[in-house]
Amino acid sequence: MADEAPFQFLHSEVIEYIYKSADSGEAENGRNITKLENMGLRVGQGLIERLTKDTARFKDELDIMKFICKDFWTCVFKKQIDNLRTNHQGIYVLQDNKFRLLSHLSAGKQYLEHAPKYLAFTCGLVRGALSNLGVKSIVTAEVSIMPACKMHII
Amino acid sequence: MADEAPFQFLHSEVIEYIYKSADSGEAENGRNITKLENMGLRVGQGLIERLTKDTARFKDELDIMKFICKDFWTCVFKKQIDNLRTNHQGIYVLQDNKFRLLSHLSAGKQYLEHAPKYLAFTCGLVRGALSNLGVKSIVTAEVSIMPACKMHII
Repeated sequence: MADEAPFQFLHSEVIEYIYKSADSGEAENGRNITKLENMGLRVGQGLIERLTKDTARFKDELDIMKFICKDFWTCVFKKQIDNLRTNHQGIYVLQDNKFRLLSHLSAGKQYLEHAPKYLAFTCGLVRGALSNLGVKSIVTAEVSIMPACKMHII
Repeated sequence: MADEAPFQFLHSEVIEYIYKSADSGEAENGRNITKLENMGLRVGQGLIERLTKDTARFKDELDIMKFICKDFWTCVFKKQIDNLRTNHQGIYVLQDNKFRLLSHLSAGKQYLEHAPKYLAFTCGLVRGALSNLGVKSIVTAEVSIMPACKMHII
């Protein structure tokens, strides 16, 4: 039994709940994404606070990103980020080849349009964690082939 | 780092979200409790389905309860139920001496009144799991000393 299952199921229910209790439409969809993102933000802030309670001070921004890719990602998704790239000027790309919050969706292209609502929470999660470590960021996500996912951090 | 932290933080945010987006008042509080309970119900159904995928058929109702106390509880809360009692006529009392979803609240008596909203999801969780195993139930929770919690299953 995968350890992250309770979190995954609850995450799906939250999306279901937020979308069900709102009207449909483009503007409403945007508001729902924002709600999920904000929820992730606060969870990320709480988690990183607990995770870094006993860790040494970080050397630099890259050191923080490595912590997000390893410890933080493992805590939430029970696996590490598969690939971290940076231009060394403040842009980072984190790639997860088997992103857990997408793995229950079929890999077919017809589901690609549903991906954003499964990514919004995690974008907030990363932004919240970074903000508590003193890194102001914009986090977006991109899916080209399910269930792989790239997080862009600026 | 406790493995259940992402689930705990998300659970807290869900309560926060549901209570914030609703009016206050007694009737509204009841509706919020129902929403949380229903969310737990669906998570419980999903989880138990995955958990029992490869398990042998259960002997009887008590056998099912033992599974809930051990495997199911450990999956969600990373610990077992501390005490299971039954009158052997369909009533069960499950006691968790350190219930994880209450452990972040102070033990002071003044917080006891807030306990119900932290228990509703879990009542649904247990009811959902049992219903998928063919046991129709009513599940209520009781807190007398934080963070201990008793679940009554009828």
